[in-house]
Amino acid sequence: MNSFVDFNALNNIVRGLAVAKPSSGTLSGHAAGEPFDKAVYNELKKVYGDKIFRQYEHLNFLYRKHIDAISLDAKKKLFESPTVLFLLSRSDGATKKWSISNPFEEKQNDTADILAVDGHFFDLIDVKTRNIAKSAQPPNIISAYKLAQLCATMIDNAEYDNFTIDYFEVDWALEHEKLICKNTHHANLFKARPESLYINWAAAMQIQFHVVDCDQTFSEDREKWARDYLRHFVTEAERRASYMTETFVEPFKKYI
Amino acid sequence: MNSFVDFNALNNIVRGLAVAKPSSGTLSGHAAGEPFDKAVYNELKKVYGDKIFRQYEHLNFLYRKHIDAISLDAKKKLFESPTVLFLLSRSDGATKKWSISNPFEEKQNDTADILAVDGHFFDLIDVKTRNIAKSAQPPNIISAYKLAQLCATMIDNAEYDNFTIDYFEVDWALEHEKLICKNTHHANLFKARPESLYINWAAAMQIQFHVVDCDQTFSEDREKWARDYLRHFVTEAERRASYMTETFVEPFKKYI
Repeated sequence: MNSFVDFNALNNIVRGLAVAKPSSGTLSGHAAGEPFDKAVYNELKKVYGDKIFRQYEHLNFLYRKHIDAISLDAKKKLFESPTVLFLLSRSDGATKKWSISNPFEEKQNDTADILAVDGHFFDLIDVKTRNIAKSAQPPNIISAYKLAQLCATMIDNAEYDNFTIDYFEVDWALEHEKLICKNTHHANLFKARPESLYINWAAAMQIQFHVVDCDQTFSEDREKWARDYLRHFVTEAERRASYMTETFVEPFKKYI
Repeated sequence: MNSFVDFNALNNIVRGLAVAKPSSGTLSGHAAGEPFDKAVYNELKKVYGDKIFRQYEHLNFLYRKHIDAISLDAKKKLFESPTVLFLLSRSDGATKKWSISNPFEEKQNDTADILAVDGHFFDLIDVKTRNIAKSAQPPNIISAYKLAQLCATMIDNAEYDNFTIDYFEVDWALEHEKLICKNTHHANLFKARPESLYINWAAAMQIQFHVVDCDQTFSEDREKWARDYLRHFVTEAERRASYMTETFVEPFKKYI
Protein backbone atom coordinates (compact mmCIF):
# COMPACT_ATOMS: atom_id res chain seq x y z
CA MET A 1 0.00 0.00 0.00
CA ASN A 2 1.34 3.41 -0.92
CA SER A 3 1.48 6.28 1.51
CA PHE A 4 -1.12 9.04 1.47
CA VAL A 5 1.81 11.47 1.47
CA ASP A 6 2.30 13.03 -1.95
CA PHE A 7 6.06 13.03 -2.36
CA ASN A 8 5.93 14.74 -5.76
CA ALA A 9 4.16 17.66 -4.12
CA LEU A 10 6.68 17.52 -1.24
CA ASN A 11 9.55 17.78 -3.76
CA ASN A 12 8.07 21.01 -5.07
CA ILE A 13 7.51 22.42 -1.59
CA VAL A 14 10.98 21.65 -0.23
CA ARG A 15 13.10 22.55 -3.27
CA GLY A 16 14.43 26.07 -2.83
CA LEU A 17 13.72 26.12 0.90
CA ALA A 18 16.31 28.00 2.98
CA VAL A 19 17.16 27.23 6.61
CA ALA A 20 19.50 28.95 9.05
CA LYS A 21 23.05 27.60 9.13
CA PRO A 22 23.56 25.66 12.36
CA SER A 23 25.56 27.66 14.89
CA SER A 24 27.93 24.75 15.50
CA GLY A 25 30.33 26.06 12.87
CA THR A 26 31.27 22.73 11.31
CA LEU A 27 29.07 21.68 8.45
CA SER A 28 29.79 17.99 8.78
CA GLY A 29 27.31 15.15 8.66
CA HIS A 30 24.41 14.94 11.03
CA ALA A 31 24.33 18.39 12.61
CA ALA A 32 24.34 20.30 9.32
CA GLY A 33 21.32 18.61 7.81
CA GLU A 34 19.17 18.49 10.93
CA PRO A 35 17.37 21.80 10.26
CA PHE A 36 16.07 20.32 6.98
CA ASP A 37 14.67 17.30 8.81
CA LYS A 38 12.68 19.73 10.97
CA ALA A 39 11.76 21.82 7.90
CA VAL A 40 10.34 18.78 6.08
CA TYR A 41 8.37 17.90 9.22
CA ASN A 42 6.95 21.43 9.38
CA GLU A 43 5.98 21.41 5.69
CA LEU A 44 4.22 18.04 6.09
CA LYS A 45 2.41 19.39 9.16
CA LYS A 46 1.09 22.28 7.06
CA VAL A 47 -0.44 19.85 4.56
CA TYR A 48 -1.44 16.84 6.69
CA GLY A 49 -1.86 18.44 10.14
CA ASP A 50 -2.34 16.04 13.01
CA LYS A 51 -1.54 13.04 10.86
CA ILE A 52 2.15 13.99 11.11
CA PHE A 53 4.25 13.08 14.15
CA ARG A 54 7.82 12.71 15.24
CA GLN A 55 8.14 9.02 16.22
CA TYR A 56 8.43 9.81 19.95
CA GLU A 57 5.47 12.20 19.69
CA HIS A 58 3.29 9.42 18.38
CA LEU A 59 4.30 7.07 21.19
CA ASN A 60 3.55 9.77 23.76
CA PHE A 61 0.22 10.51 22.00
CA LEU A 62 -0.76 6.82 21.97
CA TYR A 63 0.13 6.14 25.62
CA ARG A 64 -1.50 9.39 26.81
CA LYS A 65 -4.70 8.62 24.89
CA HIS A 66 -4.85 5.17 26.50
CA ILE A 67 -3.68 6.05 29.96
CA ASP A 68 -5.56 3.00 31.30
CA ALA A 69 -3.13 0.73 29.38
CA ILE A 70 -0.72 0.45 32.27
CA SER A 71 1.09 -2.87 31.92
CA LEU A 72 3.74 -3.48 29.30
CA ASP A 73 1.42 -6.00 27.64
CA ALA A 74 -1.47 -3.55 27.54
CA LYS A 75 0.78 -0.89 26.00
CA LYS A 76 2.00 -3.35 23.35
CA LYS A 77 -1.59 -4.25 22.42
CA LEU A 78 -2.29 -0.58 21.60
CA PHE A 79 -0.29 -0.96 18.39
CA GLU A 80 -2.78 -3.59 17.12
CA SER A 81 -0.06 -4.82 14.79
CA PRO A 82 3.06 -6.89 15.49
CA THR A 83 4.94 -5.23 12.62
CA VAL A 84 4.12 -1.68 13.66
CA LEU A 85 4.91 -2.61 17.29
CA PHE A 86 8.28 -3.95 16.13
CA LEU A 87 9.06 -0.83 14.10
CA LEU A 88 7.90 1.90 16.44
CA SER A 89 8.01 0.81 20.07
CA ARG A 90 10.87 1.55 22.42
CA SER A 91 12.53 -1.17 24.52
CA ASP A 92 10.52 -2.92 27.24
CA GLY A 93 12.64 -1.20 29.88
CA ALA A 94 12.04 2.28 28.45
CA THR A 95 8.32 1.56 27.93
CA LYS A 96 7.91 0.47 31.58
CA LYS A 97 9.42 3.77 32.72
CA TRP A 98 7.05 5.86 30.56
CA SER A 99 4.55 8.07 32.37
CA ILE A 100 2.71 11.32 31.69
CA SER A 101 5.35 13.15 33.69
CA ASN A 102 8.18 11.10 32.11
CA PRO A 103 7.32 10.94 28.41
CA PHE A 104 9.68 9.83 25.64
CA GLU A 105 12.11 12.29 24.11
CA GLU A 106 13.61 12.23 20.63
CA LYS A 107 16.16 9.44 20.16
CA GLN A 108 18.68 9.40 17.36
CA ASN A 109 18.26 5.71 16.54
CA ASP A 110 14.49 5.74 16.29
CA THR A 111 13.49 4.04 13.04
CA ALA A 112 11.76 7.06 11.53
CA ASP A 113 12.34 10.79 11.59
CA ILE A 114 8.71 11.44 10.77
CA LEU A 115 5.54 9.34 11.03
CA ALA A 116 2.57 9.94 8.78
CA VAL A 117 -0.40 8.16 10.36
CA ASP A 118 -3.87 7.61 8.92
CA GLY A 119 -6.07 5.35 11.03
CA HIS A 120 -4.19 2.06 11.17
CA PHE A 121 -1.77 2.95 8.38
CA PHE A 122 1.76 4.16 9.12
CA ASP A 123 4.30 5.73 6.78
CA LEU A 124 7.77 5.85 8.33
CA ILE A 125 9.65 8.71 6.68
CA ASP A 126 13.38 9.14 7.07
CA VAL A 127 14.95 12.41 5.90
CA LYS A 128 18.49 12.11 4.52
CA THR A 129 20.40 15.33 4.04
CA ARG A 130 23.37 15.75 1.76
CA ASN A 131 25.88 18.54 1.28
CA ILE A 132 26.29 18.76 -2.51
CA ALA A 133 29.69 20.43 -2.10
CA LYS A 134 31.10 17.15 -0.73
CA SER A 135 31.18 13.63 -2.06
CA ALA A 136 30.05 11.48 0.83
CA GLN A 137 29.62 7.77 1.46
CA PRO A 138 26.01 6.60 1.15
CA PRO A 139 24.25 7.09 4.50
CA ASN A 140 22.97 4.42 6.86
CA ILE A 141 19.40 3.54 5.88
CA ILE A 142 18.28 0.77 8.24
CA SER A 143 19.88 -2.23 9.93
CA ALA A 144 19.82 -5.16 7.51
CA TYR A 145 19.12 -7.47 10.47
CA LYS A 146 16.26 -5.32 11.72
CA LEU A 147 14.79 -5.39 8.21
CA ALA A 148 15.13 -9.20 8.12
CA GLN A 149 13.30 -9.44 11.46
CA LEU A 150 10.66 -7.07 10.07
CA CYS A 151 10.18 -9.23 6.96
CA ALA A 152 9.84 -12.38 9.09
CA THR A 153 7.27 -10.59 11.30
CA MET A 154 5.34 -9.48 8.22
CA ILE A 155 5.20 -13.05 6.89
CA ASP A 156 4.40 -14.61 10.30
CA ASN A 157 1.45 -12.25 10.71
CA ALA A 158 0.50 -11.86 7.04
CA GLU A 159 0.69 -8.10 7.55
CA TYR A 160 1.63 -6.47 4.29
CA ASP A 161 -0.55 -3.43 3.89
CA ASN A 162 -0.55 -1.40 7.09
CA PHE A 163 2.76 0.41 6.78
CA THR A 164 5.44 1.54 4.39
CA ILE A 165 8.90 3.09 4.62
CA ASP A 166 9.91 6.15 2.61
CA TYR A 167 13.22 8.01 2.27
CA PHE A 168 13.44 11.67 1.36
CA GLU A 169 16.80 13.14 0.35
CA VAL A 170 17.47 16.87 0.69
CA ASP A 171 20.49 18.07 -1.29
CA TRP A 172 21.69 21.37 0.10
CA ALA A 173 24.37 23.99 -0.45
CA LEU A 174 25.69 26.77 1.75
CA GLU A 175 24.91 30.17 0.20
CA HIS A 176 25.21 33.53 1.96
CA GLU A 177 25.32 31.89 5.41
CA LYS A 178 22.11 29.95 4.73
CA LEU A 179 21.54 26.34 3.75
CA ILE A 180 19.55 26.20 0.53
CA CYS A 181 17.78 23.06 -0.66
CA LYS A 182 18.94 22.64 -4.26
CA ASN A 183 17.19 19.35 -4.99
CA THR A 184 15.19 16.53 -3.39
CA HIS A 185 14.69 12.85 -4.13
CA HIS A 186 12.21 10.28 -2.89
CA ALA A 187 12.43 6.50 -2.73
CA ASN A 188 10.17 3.85 -1.23
CA LEU A 189 12.05 0.95 0.37
CA PHE A 190 9.63 -1.65 -0.95
CA LYS A 191 10.01 -0.45 -4.53
CA ALA A 192 13.74 -1.23 -4.45
CA ARG A 193 14.63 -4.68 -5.75
CA PRO A 194 15.80 -6.43 -2.55
CA GLU A 195 18.91 -7.81 -4.31
CA SER A 196 19.99 -4.25 -5.10
CA LEU A 197 20.36 -3.31 -1.41
CA TYR A 198 23.97 -3.04 -0.26
CA ILE A 199 24.66 -4.35 3.27
CA ASN A 200 27.74 -2.93 5.00
CA TRP A 201 28.45 -5.68 7.53
CA ALA A 202 31.32 -3.83 9.19
CA ALA A 203 29.21 -0.69 9.67
CA ALA A 204 26.69 -2.16 12.10
CA MET A 205 25.13 -4.22 9.27
CA GLN A 206 23.55 -1.11 7.82
CA ILE A 207 21.92 -1.00 4.43
CA GLN A 208 23.44 2.02 2.71
CA PHE A 209 22.38 4.00 -0.33
CA HIS A 210 21.93 7.53 -1.57
CA VAL A 211 18.18 7.98 -2.07
CA VAL A 212 18.79 9.37 -5.56
CA ASP A 213 20.53 6.12 -6.54
CA CYS A 214 17.99 3.74 -4.98
CA ASP A 215 16.52 1.24 -7.42
CA GLN A 216 12.72 1.69 -7.75
CA THR A 217 11.83 -1.02 -10.23
CA PHE A 218 10.28 -3.66 -7.97
CA SER A 219 6.64 -4.08 -8.94
CA GLU A 220 5.47 -7.28 -7.24
CA ASP A 221 3.62 -7.59 -3.93
CA ARG A 222 4.94 -7.03 -0.41
CA GLU A 223 5.04 -10.75 0.50
CA LYS A 224 7.28 -11.38 -2.52
CA TRP A 225 9.44 -8.45 -1.44
CA ALA A 226 9.79 -9.84 2.09
CA ARG A 227 10.76 -13.31 0.87
CA ASP A 228 13.15 -11.91 -1.77
CA TYR A 229 14.77 -9.70 0.86
CA LEU A 230 15.21 -12.61 3.29
CA ARG A 231 16.84 -14.66 0.51
CA HIS A 232 19.18 -11.72 -0.23
CA PHE A 233 19.99 -11.21 3.48
CA VAL A 234 20.75 -14.91 4.06
CA THR A 235 22.89 -15.11 0.91
CA GLU A 236 24.86 -12.01 1.90
CA ALA A 237 25.29 -13.22 5.51
CA GLU A 238 26.65 -16.53 4.22
CA ARG A 239 28.94 -14.67 1.83
CA ARG A 240 30.21 -12.43 4.63
CA ALA A 241 30.83 -15.43 6.94
CA SER A 242 32.88 -17.10 4.18
CA TYR A 243 34.76 -13.88 3.49
CA MET A 244 35.62 -13.60 7.19
CA THR A 245 37.04 -17.11 7.21
CA GLU A 246 39.04 -16.51 4.03
CA THR A 247 40.37 -13.10 5.08
CA PHE A 248 40.65 -13.18 8.86
CA VAL A 249 41.26 -16.85 9.61
CA GLU A 250 43.11 -18.70 6.83
CA PRO A 251 46.01 -16.25 6.25
CA PHE A 252 46.89 -16.17 9.96
CA LYS A 253 46.66 -19.87 10.81
CA LYS A 254 50.30 -20.50 9.93
CA TYR A 255 51.44 -18.22 12.75
CA ILE A 256 49.66 -19.98 15.59
CA MET B 1 61.21 -2.32 24.15
CA ASN B 2 59.62 0.42 26.22
CA SER B 3 59.26 3.96 25.03
CA PHE B 4 61.64 6.69 26.14
CA VAL B 5 58.55 8.73 26.97
CA ASP B 6 57.98 8.88 30.74
CA PHE B 7 54.22 8.47 31.04
CA ASN B 8 54.28 8.82 34.84
CA ALA B 9 55.81 12.25 34.41
CA LEU B 10 53.28 13.00 31.66
CA ASN B 11 50.42 12.11 34.04
CA ASN B 12 51.69 14.74 36.47
CA ILE B 13 52.10 17.35 33.77
CA VAL B 14 48.69 16.90 32.15
CA ARG B 15 46.54 16.46 35.26
CA GLY B 16 44.96 19.79 36.15
CA LEU B 17 45.61 21.27 32.71
CA ALA B 18 42.87 23.57 31.42
CA VAL B 19 42.04 24.14 27.76
CA ALA B 20 39.55 26.47 26.10
CA LYS B 21 36.12 24.99 25.46
CA PRO B 22 35.72 24.36 21.73
CA SER B 23 33.55 26.97 20.07
CA SER B 24 31.37 24.34 18.40
CA GLY B 25 28.94 24.43 21.30
CA THR B 26 28.27 20.69 21.48
CA LEU B 27 30.57 18.83 23.83
CA SER B 28 30.10 15.48 22.14
CA GLY B 29 32.78 12.98 21.26
CA HIS B 30 35.65 13.86 19.00
CA ALA B 31 35.46 17.65 18.80
CA ALA B 32 35.34 18.19 22.57
CA GLY B 33 38.50 16.29 23.39
CA GLU B 34 40.63 17.50 20.49
CA PRO B 35 42.19 20.44 22.37
CA PHE B 36 43.61 17.95 24.87
CA ASP B 37 45.22 15.92 22.09
CA LYS B 38 46.99 19.13 21.03
CA ALA B 39 47.81 19.99 24.66
CA VAL B 40 49.46 16.59 25.25
CA TYR B 41 51.46 17.08 22.04
CA ASN B 42 52.61 20.52 23.23
CA GLU B 43 53.65 19.20 26.66
CA LEU B 44 55.62 16.35 25.08
CA LYS B 45 57.28 18.86 22.73
CA LYS B 46 58.44 20.85 25.77
CA VAL B 47 60.17 17.79 27.23
CA TYR B 48 61.35 15.88 24.16
CA GLY B 49 61.63 18.66 21.56
CA ASP B 50 62.24 17.52 18.01
CA LYS B 51 61.66 13.88 18.89
CA ILE B 52 57.92 14.60 18.94
CA PHE B 53 55.85 14.73 15.74
CA ARG B 54 52.31 14.52 14.53
CA GLN B 55 52.26 11.44 12.26
CA TYR B 56 51.87 13.52 9.08
CA GLU B 57 54.66 15.86 10.25
CA HIS B 58 57.06 12.96 10.49
CA LEU B 59 56.19 11.74 7.00
CA ASN B 60 56.73 15.25 5.61
CA PHE B 61 60.01 15.50 7.56
CA LEU B 62 61.26 12.15 6.25
CA TYR B 63 60.38 12.79 2.61
CA ARG B 64 61.78 16.36 2.72
CA LYS B 65 65.02 15.17 4.28
CA HIS B 66 65.43 12.59 1.51
CA ILE B 67 64.15 14.59 -1.41
CA ASP B 68 66.24 12.39 -3.74
CA ALA B 69 63.99 9.42 -2.84
CA ILE B 70 61.58 10.04 -5.67
CA SER B 71 60.02 6.70 -6.61
CA LEU B 72 57.42 5.00 -4.42
CA ASP B 73 59.94 2.20 -3.79
CA ALA B 74 62.65 4.64 -2.73
CA LYS B 75 60.23 6.38 -0.36
CA LYS B 76 59.22 3.04 1.16
CA LYS B 77 62.86 2.12 1.76
CA LEU B 78 63.32 5.26 3.89
CA PHE B 79 61.37 3.59 6.70
CA GLU B 80 64.06 0.87 6.96
CA SER B 81 61.44 -1.32 8.62
CA PRO B 82 58.47 -3.18 7.14
CA THR B 83 56.51 -2.86 10.41
CA VAL B 84 57.05 0.88 10.75
CA LEU B 85 56.30 1.30 7.05
CA PHE B 86 53.04 -0.61 7.56
CA LEU B 87 52.07 1.48 10.59
CA LEU B 88 53.00 4.96 9.43
CA SER B 89 52.93 5.28 5.67
CA ARG B 90 50.01 6.62 3.69
CA SER B 91 48.54 4.75 0.72
CA ASP B 92 50.64 4.27 -2.43
CA GLY B 93 48.38 6.68 -4.28
CA ALA B 94 48.75 9.42 -1.68
CA THR B 95 52.51 8.84 -1.39
CA LYS B 96 52.97 9.20 -5.16
CA LYS B 97 51.20 12.56 -5.03
CA TRP B 98 53.43 13.87 -2.23
CA SER B 99 55.75 16.76 -3.04
CA ILE B 100 57.37 19.66 -1.18
CA SER B 101 54.59 21.91 -2.40
CA ASN B 102 51.93 19.23 -1.75
CA PRO B 103 52.83 17.78 1.65
CA PHE B 104 50.58 15.57 3.77
CA GLU B 105 47.99 17.12 6.05
CA GLU B 106 46.52 15.66 9.23
CA LYS B 107 44.19 12.72 8.60
CA GLN B 108 41.69 11.47 11.14
CA ASN B 109 42.37 7.78 10.55
CA ASP B 110 46.14 7.99 10.86
CA THR B 111 47.29 5.28 13.28
CA ALA B 112 48.83 7.64 15.83
CA ASP B 113 47.98 11.09 17.12
CA ILE B 114 51.57 11.66 18.20
CA LEU B 115 54.88 10.02 17.23
CA ALA B 116 57.83 9.95 19.60
CA VAL B 117 60.90 9.12 17.53
CA ASP B 118 64.40 8.32 18.72
CA GLY B 119 66.74 7.16 15.98
CA HIS B 120 65.12 4.03 14.59
CA PHE B 121 62.66 3.65 17.48
CA PHE B 122 59.05 4.79 17.17
CA ASP B 123 56.42 5.20 19.87
CA LEU B 124 52.92 5.64 18.43
CA ILE B 125 50.87 7.55 20.97
CA ASP B 126 47.10 7.81 20.73
CA VAL B 127 45.32 10.30 22.98
CA LYS B 128 41.82 9.27 24.08
CA THR B 129 39.69 11.94 25.69
CA ARG B 130 36.72 11.28 27.92
CA ASN B 131 34.02 13.51 29.37
CA ILE B 132 33.65 12.27 32.95
CA ALA B 133 30.14 13.73 33.13
CA LYS B 134 28.94 11.11 30.65
CA SER B 135 29.14 7.33 30.58
CA ALA B 136 30.37 6.49 27.13
CA GLN B 137 31.07 3.32 25.18
CA PRO B 138 34.76 2.38 25.09
CA PRO B 139 36.43 4.18 22.18
CA ASN B 140 37.88 2.67 19.03
CA ILE B 141 41.51 1.76 19.66
CA ILE B 142 42.79 0.13 16.47
CA SER B 143 41.38 -2.13 13.76
CA ALA B 144 41.70 -5.74 14.94
CA TYR B 145 42.52 -6.75 11.35
CA LYS B 146 45.21 -4.08 11.00
CA LEU B 147 46.72 -5.32 14.26
CA ALA B 148 46.67 -8.91 12.95
CA GLN B 149 48.46 -7.78 9.80
CA LEU B 150 50.94 -5.91 11.99
CA CYS B 151 51.63 -9.02 14.08
CA ALA B 152 52.16 -11.13 10.95
CA THR B 153 54.57 -8.47 9.60
CA MET B 154 56.47 -8.44 12.90
CA ILE B 155 56.86 -12.23 12.82
CA ASP B 156 57.73 -12.36 9.09
CA ASN B 157 60.51 -9.81 9.63
CA ALA B 158 61.49 -10.75 13.18
CA GLU B 159 61.01 -7.08 14.11
CA TYR B 160 59.99 -6.84 17.72
CA ASP B 161 61.95 -4.00 19.27
CA ASN B 162 61.76 -0.95 17.03
CA PHE B 163 58.33 0.39 17.94
CA THR B 164 55.60 0.35 20.53
CA ILE B 165 52.03 1.62 20.83
CA ASP B 166 50.81 3.65 23.82
CA TYR B 167 47.40 5.01 24.77
CA PHE B 168 46.92 8.05 26.96
CA GLU B 169 43.48 8.81 28.39
CA VAL B 170 42.55 12.34 29.43
CA ASP B 171 39.45 12.50 31.67
CA TRP B 172 38.01 16.00 31.58
CA ALA B 173 35.17 18.01 32.99
CA LEU B 174 33.62 21.32 31.96
CA GLU B 175 34.18 23.94 34.67
CA HIS B 176 33.62 27.69 34.28
CA GLU B 177 33.59 27.45 30.46
CA LYS B 178 36.94 25.61 30.43
CA LEU B 179 37.77 21.95 30.01
CA ILE B 180 39.80 20.77 32.99
CA CYS B 181 41.81 17.56 32.96
CA LYS B 182 40.72 15.76 36.13
CA ASN B 183 42.71 12.55 35.63
CA THR B 184 44.88 10.69 33.14
CA HIS B 185 45.67 7.04 32.47
CA HIS B 186 48.29 5.29 30.41
CA ALA B 187 48.36 1.83 28.86
CA ASN B 188 50.78 0.07 26.54
CA LEU B 189 49.10 -2.13 23.96
CA PHE B 190 51.72 -4.86 24.26
CA LYS B 191 51.28 -5.11 28.02
CA ALA B 192 47.61 -6.06 27.58
CA ARG B 193 46.99 -9.79 27.51
CA PRO B 194 45.92 -10.33 23.88
CA GLU B 195 42.95 -12.50 24.95
CA SER B 196 41.61 -9.55 26.99
CA LEU B 197 41.13 -7.37 23.90
CA TYR B 198 37.50 -6.94 22.86
CA ILE B 199 36.86 -6.89 19.11
CA ASN B 200 33.66 -5.17 17.97
CA TRP B 201 33.11 -6.83 14.59
CA ALA B 202 30.07 -4.73 13.70
CA ALA B 203 31.97 -1.50 14.44
CA ALA B 204 34.56 -1.76 11.68
CA MET B 205 36.30 -4.61 13.56
CA GLN B 206 37.67 -2.15 16.08
CA ILE B 207 39.34 -3.18 19.31
CA GLN B 208 37.61 -1.12 21.99
CA PHE B 209 38.57 -0.32 25.56
CA HIS B 210 38.80 2.52 28.03
CA VAL B 211 42.50 3.03 28.70
CA VAL B 212 41.84 2.99 32.46
CA ASP B 213 40.35 -0.52 32.14
CA CYS B 214 43.03 -1.95 29.86
CA ASP B 215 44.72 -5.08 31.24
CA GLN B 216 48.47 -4.50 31.75
CA THR B 217 49.60 -7.87 33.06
CA PHE B 218 51.31 -9.38 30.00
CA SER B 219 54.97 -9.86 30.81
CA GLU B 220 56.34 -12.11 28.07
CA ASP B 221 58.16 -11.04 24.92
CA ARG B 222 56.76 -9.33 21.83
CA GLU B 223 56.92 -12.42 19.61
CA LYS B 224 54.78 -14.28 22.15
CA TRP B 225 52.40 -11.32 22.18
CA ALA B 226 52.11 -11.35 18.38
CA ARG B 227 51.40 -15.08 18.24
CA ASP B 228 48.95 -14.92 21.17
CA TYR B 229 47.14 -12.04 19.51
CA LEU B 230 46.89 -13.86 16.19
CA ARG B 231 45.43 -16.91 17.99
CA HIS B 232 42.90 -14.62 19.71
CA PHE B 233 42.02 -12.85 16.45
CA VAL B 234 41.53 -16.10 14.53
CA THR B 235 39.44 -17.61 17.36
CA GLU B 236 37.24 -14.51 17.54
CA ALA B 237 36.86 -14.33 13.74
CA GLU B 238 35.76 -17.98 13.69
CA ARG B 239 33.37 -17.30 16.55
CA ARG B 240 31.90 -14.29 14.75
CA ALA B 241 31.47 -16.26 11.50
CA SER B 242 29.60 -18.98 13.42
CA TYR B 243 27.49 -16.38 15.21
CA MET B 244 26.57 -14.84 11.87
CA THR B 245 25.41 -18.19 10.53
CA GLU B 246 23.41 -18.95 13.69
CA THR B 247 21.82 -15.51 13.96
CA PHE B 248 21.50 -14.21 10.42
CA VAL B 249 21.14 -17.37 8.34
CA GLU B 250 19.49 -20.26 10.23
CA PRO B 251 16.42 -18.41 11.64
CA PHE B 252 15.47 -17.03 8.22
CA LYS B 253 15.97 -20.12 6.05
CA LYS B 254 12.41 -21.31 6.58
CA TYR B 255 11.05 -18.23 4.80
CA ILE B 256 12.89 -18.67 1.54
